[in-house]
Amino acid sequence: MRTVVPFAAGDPKTRLADVLSSAERSAFARTMLSDVLGSVRAAGGDPTILSTAPVDADAPVTVDDRSLSTAVNAVLGEADGPVAVVMADLGLASPAALERLYATGGDVVAAPGRGGGTNALVVRHPEFCVDYHGVSFRDHRRCARDLGAAFSVVDSHRLATDIDERADLAELLLHGEGDASAWLRDAGFELVATDGRVTVTR
Amino acid sequence: MRTVVPFAAGDPKTRLADVLSSAERSAFARTMLSDVLGSVRAAGGDPTILSTAPVDADAPVTVDDRSLSTAVNAVLGEADGPVAVVMADLGLASPAALERLYATGGDVVAAPGRGGGTNALVVRHPEFCVDYHGVSFRDHRRCARDLGAAFSVVDSHRLATDIDERADLAELLLHGEGDASAWLRDAGFELVATDGRVTVTR
Repeated sequence: MRTVVPFAAGDPKTRLADVLSSAERSAFARTMLSDVLGSVRAAGGDPTILSTAPVDADAPVTVDDRSLSTAVNAVLGEADGPVAVVMADLGLASPAALERLYATGGDVVAAPGRGGGTNALVVRHPEFCVDYHGVSFRDHRRCARDLGAAFSVVDSHRLATDIDERADLAELLLHGEGDASAWLRDAGFELVATDGRVTVTR
Repeated sequence: MRTVVPFAAGDPKTRLADVLSSAERSAFARTMLSDVLGSVRAAGGDPTILSTAPVDADAPVTVDDRSLSTAVNAVLGEADGPVAVVMADLGLASPAALERLYATGGDVVAAPGRGGGTNALVVRHPEFCVDYHGVSFRDHRRCARDLGAAFSVVDSHRLATDIDERADLAELLLHGEGDASAWLRDAGFELVATDGRVTVTR
């Protein structure tokens, strides 16, 4: 399936600025992008990168510096078949999780991100538009309903876990199977047990 | 499948004390317990509650005031067949998610909780013991490997989401299908979009 991987090329992952320098955040974001591209291909997808600026990566790149929603909707508007949209910061996205995404029926298939986001989508309805602002999962569900489109959900911890904040790095250390978790280990990150949820130190 | 649902009856959900009174936390925890019991039954499971103190609920109750790990291991030690262990605070545990848990093959099947926990287990190996302290998912994986037991993972956002902290309430409002999400709405909670992940206000 054609799979668009949006990528924010400039100053990525700002919510990780307390633990990673700007150069490190760039390198880490590109490593996650590379992992996602590999998982998309291993799951039978055909990835293209939708980037805010030119980026050197192992897939065709379309540069569109408009907002994420506008850029994705431009792709959807020109598509003549199903299109998947898979975020570049899904450091846990395994081939098996993406196979489930592709295999789930429905006019619109969504994998919720933790905190109301929409981390992965399959769009098979010509009129569906994305809006990643705000509580996007709720808005996408509502929009599908308003269109009379069948809406399905993929229940996946791997796809729900976008790597945005320090606590997310613990998920990557625990469950990561790609280069991004190795990158974190090489950068000196390790798990720390607390009274509540596990976190990381460096 | 026989399914043990551990429940902490005294002063539950202390990490929600900033948004719920002690009496409210008790009521909320019991509502989640009831939802979990309903989902277990709907998925074909046979639930029993393993509680730290007597509790009035719609399933047989075994009272064991020892530590969670000790109490669960006592149950596993007496079992003569597969046993599932499903935490009582999985407010998003749907019948479909639990059906996936039950249907997954392996001597030990685990659904990771966010932050290194083990939110649901199926144990089919006579020597496997739980240890919920620390990074339990990693420890359970290691223990299964040491026993030569086949270890499988259920990749589920619903099962990964134990409701412990304020941010978790947003997941329940977004994705909940049982009485606990209705309880939260009745208590005045609603979603609030932020620059990052969605949170809740009351």
